[in-house]
Amino acid sequence: MNKKAIILLSGGLDSTTCLAMAQSQGYECYALSFSYGQKHSSELEAAKIIANSKDAVLHKIISLDLGSFGGSALTDENIEVPTDETIGIPVTYVPARNTVFLSVALAWAEVLEADAIFAGVNAVDYSGYPDCRPEYIEAFQKMADLATKAGIEGRGVKIETPLLHLTKVEIIQAGHDLGVDYGQTVSCYKADELGKACGECDSCRIRTNAFEQAGLNDPTQYS
Amino acid sequence: MNKKAIILLSGGLDSTTCLAMAQSQGYECYALSFSYGQKHSSELEAAKIIANSKDAVLHKIISLDLGSFGGSALTDENIEVPTDETIGIPVTYVPARNTVFLSVALAWAEVLEADAIFAGVNAVDYSGYPDCRPEYIEAFQKMADLATKAGIEGRGVKIETPLLHLTKVEIIQAGHDLGVDYGQTVSCYKADELGKACGECDSCRIRTNAFEQAGLNDPTQYS
Repeated sequence: MNKKAIILLSGGLDSTTCLAMAQSQGYECYALSFSYGQKHSSELEAAKIIANSKDAVLHKIISLDLGSFGGSALTDENIEVPTDETIGIPVTYVPARNTVFLSVALAWAEVLEADAIFAGVNAVDYSGYPDCRPEYIEAFQKMADLATKAGIEGRGVKIETPLLHLTKVEIIQAGHDLGVDYGQTVSCYKADELGKACGECDSCRIRTNAFEQAGLNDPTQYS
Repeated sequence: MNKKAIILLSGGLDSTTCLAMAQSQGYECYALSFSYGQKHSSELEAAKIIANSKDAVLHKIISLDLGSFGGSALTDENIEVPTDETIGIPVTYVPARNTVFLSVALAWAEVLEADAIFAGVNAVDYSGYPDCRPEYIEAFQKMADLATKAGIEGRGVKIETPLLHLTKVEIIQAGHDLGVDYGQTVSCYKADELGKACGECDSCRIRTNAFEQAGLNDPTQYS
């Protein structure tokens, strides 16, 4: 039987690279996306196209209104997405988002009897987010082993974060080598309905610089 | 400023007792319920009545379709709720449910700057569920401390499980002393639209016996 993995697929550059990496390791991939109240919902359209073109076995989009809690520039209409660099935890931090997404993935993994969950968590360029740190991922793994039937039965579900210690340049180079079409991905926090990027937000700035430094053509469509 | 707590409120006996306990400890209580695809959705109607009669500051019901993953008798139309006692992990186990619910509560706690999350997890009568064990709760606490802004800032959010080591009889006695109206609560896995209990499922059996052993009047309405 083939190994199965759930891929947290936002439709962005990191998660799409993760999907390609999981496939290159021989996993059957089940893509999981969330409609969580994000303003930049065109990333979900991108996720659909990517899951389809990458032959994911299934692609589920789960609705979960984290926006109803507020508290983040990504979900709250009253908080502007900043265009300046931030010190400390950025206002684009969505409270406990990675924990919620990994937990829902864990629920699906239990039912599928999946071997792994891939998440495009990155500690280098997003060090301001508490839930992108290696010690957080380790703690989630320990909790998951105790939380599940899979853990009790000794199989467990491995939380795989292959991008954790890579720079954005290294991620793009790895994805490029695996044939990822980054033109399909949407990273911008303020992307318009067609997925066109603003070119100014934190996420755009990191992405644009990385393509330049990698010496690769930037297929991003800017508005 | 008053202490704030989020209470995972299913509408059942345990979570309602938890709410009363949190209030008796001086917390302002924010109730959180989930419409997760459970067949016995009358528990949500019960939760509304309880949150209202107990003066919760807010009551949020979050929709999250765990039923779309299947794999549990509580959400899957193709799996019957058993009326016999079960050995091992019961089919009523909803994969990773406590992890998902606690994670969403953690997201809200971040925004509210809440001090605690109360969950009616119980290791005595539900020892078959992996995510009702003390070691699981400890691991979730460690993960939560690393996942959040609250953790980084040294405040943290305490996961409170006051029922963890109580028997059902002790829970009912404690709630009775705090004036809980158990007639408002729905425990049955097969409760009908009006919240009337089947009297036969695991959950009913444990509840009925406990009222009897506690020597208290059982206000449950059976169909």
